Amino acid sequence: MEPYELTVSAAAEALRARDLSPVDLVDSVLLRIERVEPRTGAYVAVVSESVRREAEEAEREIAATGPRGPLHGIPMALKDVIDAEGLPTSASSRVRDGHRASANSTVAARLSRAGAILLGKTHTHEFAYGLTTPQTHNAWDERRVAGGSSGGSAVAVATGTAVFALGTDTGGSIRVPAALNGVVGLKPTYGLVPRTGVTSLSWSLDHVGPVTRSVQDAALVLEALAGPDPGDPASLPVVPGRYAPGAGEDLVGMRVGVPRNYYFDHVAPDVEEAVRDGIAALRDLGAQIVDVEVPMTRHVQAVQWGLMVPEASAAHAQTLRTTPELYGSDVRALLEAGELVLAGDYVRAQRARTLMRDRWLELFTHVDIIVAPSVPAPAATAGQDGLRWPDGSTEAVSDAYVRLSAPANITGFPALTVPAGLDREGLPIGMQFMGRPLDEAGVLRAGAAFERVTPFGLGRIAPGAAA
Amino acid sequence: MEPYELTVSAAAEALRARDLSPVDLVDSVLLRIERVEPRTGAYVAVVSESVRREAEEAEREIAATGPRGPLHGIPMALKDVIDAEGLPTSASSRVRDGHRASANSTVAARLSRAGAILLGKTHTHEFAYGLTTPQTHNAWDERRVAGGSSGGSAVAVATGTAVFALGTDTGGSIRVPAALNGVVGLKPTYGLVPRTGVTSLSWSLDHVGPVTRSVQDAALVLEALAGPDPGDPASLPVVPGRYAPGAGEDLVGMRVGVPRNYYFDHVAPDVEEAVRDGIAALRDLGAQIVDVEVPMTRHVQAVQWGLMVPEASAAHAQTLRTTPELYGSDVRALLEAGELVLAGDYVRAQRARTLMRDRWLELFTHVDIIVAPSVPAPAATAGQDGLRWPDGSTEAVSDAYVRLSAPANITGFPALTVPAGLDREGLPIGMQFMGRPLDEAGVLRAGAAFERVTPFGLGRIAPGAAA
Repeated sequence: MEPYELTVSAAAEALRARDLSPVDLVDSVLLRIERVEPRTGAYVAVVSESVRREAEEAEREIAATGPRGPLHGIPMALKDVIDAEGLPTSASSRVRDGHRASANSTVAARLSRAGAILLGKTHTHEFAYGLTTPQTHNAWDERRVAGGSSGGSAVAVATGTAVFALGTDTGGSIRVPAALNGVVGLKPTYGLVPRTGVTSLSWSLDHVGPVTRSVQDAALVLEALAGPDPGDPASLPVVPGRYAPGAGEDLVGMRVGVPRNYYFDHVAPDVEEAVRDGIAALRDLGAQIVDVEVPMTRHVQAVQWGLMVPEASAAHAQTLRTTPELYGSDVRALLEAGELVLAGDYVRAQRARTLMRDRWLELFTHVDIIVAPSVPAPAATAGQDGLRWPDGSTEAVSDAYVRLSAPANITGFPALTVPAGLDREGLPIGMQFMGRPLDEAGVLRAGAAFERVTPFGLGRIAPGAAA
Repeated sequence: MEPYELTVSAAAEALRARDLSPVDLVDSVLLRIERVEPRTGAYVAVVSESVRREAEEAEREIAATGPRGPLHGIPMALKDVIDAEGLPTSASSRVRDGHRASANSTVAARLSRAGAILLGKTHTHEFAYGLTTPQTHNAWDERRVAGGSSGGSAVAVATGTAVFALGTDTGGSIRVPAALNGVVGLKPTYGLVPRTGVTSLSWSLDHVGPVTRSVQDAALVLEALAGPDPGDPASLPVVPGRYAPGAGEDLVGMRVGVPRNYYFDHVAPDVEEAVRDGIAALRDLGAQIVDVEVPMTRHVQAVQWGLMVPEASAAHAQTLRTTPELYGSDVRALLEAGELVLAGDYVRAQRARTLMRDRWLELFTHVDIIVAPSVPAPAATAGQDGLRWPDGSTEAVSDAYVRLSAPANITGFPALTVPAGLDREGLPIGMQFMGRPLDEAGVLRAGAAFERVTPFGLGRIAPGAAA
């Protein structure tokens, strides 16, 4: 096994035991980048020189006083909407030409303090406003989309060109690419991870979270990221707990809700089968399976778009006026459309959101976790506009990709995707675990137990396009 | 002294000591209504029969087991946007013709449980959307406006036709009429008093609170009203404390902020003088006076109107479509204008609100209370459109009346108005006490100390128009 194949926890263990040096780990990942990146296009930029220097510093510090914690010496990537001091935050957009971040985002600073080493910045669908990330190729099939908007982060982690990465999630932008590339993605509770220094798409729906190759890793990264930040007005004044699940825990006593509506409508047969098998596996682990009715589902799309679109347009108002021609045509069209949304419609979306959050909270008095597919179908072919369902109906790819993710953005509740298998074409399928506010520990515990028994396995490295 | 002249606390004391019966108290108030109400127009409707029956029940219960608390047997009024079971909630609007509330609002239910007796429903500026309450005359001069939108409640309490009343406050609608009629008005912290069953003007700015003739009374009523309610999504999950200030407390150690900007700009000379005298009185009581700079003042009007107007239009969308002709022309114009507000402008107002709240919170690390005029000028003449300031500029009455109240609506922080004297024309002046979130106790303590030394006195009954 090459060092780049290690999960965060395995690498941390090897670094701590001095079986591995940060320099060897970084060199292995950089070599992997050299080999795979030309075909995947996950990175906007790799900061090769500083990576090696930081690895040498980490090596000295670990040799002298041991590691600061599990992220010390671990090379990782940031979605390129997340500021890292001295580097451009391109947002994969020409609008940002010449940009340079004058300070670290809070999450970059926290990872740096934890000793993680920045490899580079990964591609995003322009300004995180889309579900495909066209610059990046799917880790399992280069003709397929990476998903988005954190497509670069998901593909980098899936192919071993980063040990972990950060993404952002406004309507599924962590979970969708994670699911489509066979990695783990966590959208934490709204307000748990600060967004200071992260380019805003939609302030009331934006979340920052980890993309990793194991559930345990997602917990370790979350522990470094979570906690109050006066710079983010939405930051919750809660002291974050320990999120890492215990080894080999079963799920005895956990009430797992399975939606009888919405979440299995218009879902590809292979996806449904993998998730149903996953639910059976949870039952075998001791979980009590509870049939649930998901509330207010016919409002999900209207509320998600009704909040996201005008907020995005408000955030881009100035550049949309001065340099509209620098945006890609899809993003520009959405931003311009958002300028026409009426306040009354936005107010109604907010009110519906409040009701939806209350109804979901009520739902979580009956269950501890809700499981469902993460995305209704595996990765679409690049350029494909729509999905056709067995009943003959069609759906835009972006609508389909947002549909099952959006409830957790609207409510702000935590949601995790864990690989659940491959479809008959060899494309990854994700299973989603949603929990009540701030119960990341419960969500991660269920996900970790599932991961041990899923046919996909844990820490699996994707071929990296047609490798 | 007639029973109707008693404050809540004095009446409660007399009822508890059996020096007064609820029936005598109610009869005295009903007689006062008969004499004064024809000239003041404070009430939409008085529910005379049930009042007497409830007074007799209270008399029996108090005789048998003593009073339930300080509100038991006290006759009071509700602004007619607050539901009382079986009665119409007219909102002083033809739109509500034929309406009848099928259940009590949470606040009506809590007052009923505390033993308070409903006298009737008081006039509001139509749907609480205005600052004058045209149906009602000022308690001190019938040619003057009552202020609004809780004009009926303020005039009823000021003239002794209710011992206390409830109002609602979206941009000053409790404090403005309370100040203009020489009574106490409290806008509590956003979310402390539930709004279930209260007609919404603007969900993110609406507050329910007491109008009384003493600060002590405001505290007693607040104790009955405050506390969580699952029916109001904005209700705070806090256990309310005791709010009543101790008798004769000084203000030693209290840091009282006096704004050097905004709050004394364009303020009538008599109002400024009364408030400056009030501040000197607070210093004499031991308070430490601290000069403060109020943040983001140039955004106040834009944020207040930018939030209120589209929210109000969203709340009225249906009736505005079906029966626009039933609204008064001023309210209809505002509601129709609000339908044209763009979501982007509303989003920007929300973001500015968040920043403003943060900046005000920071301000309250340096002081405990901020004092200022409640309203820049005493009651305007009915029909008067604008105020003219000494520098030659003019200002719409509604703009002037909202200007000094709005910051506490935008931030949600508690704000109290206490009578501070009469101007040279014999019209009341209000002094405003603002505090940090949920520090109603501090605000009321300062107000109560001030009330003991103000030249206006405590519990004073207004003549009742030209009585």
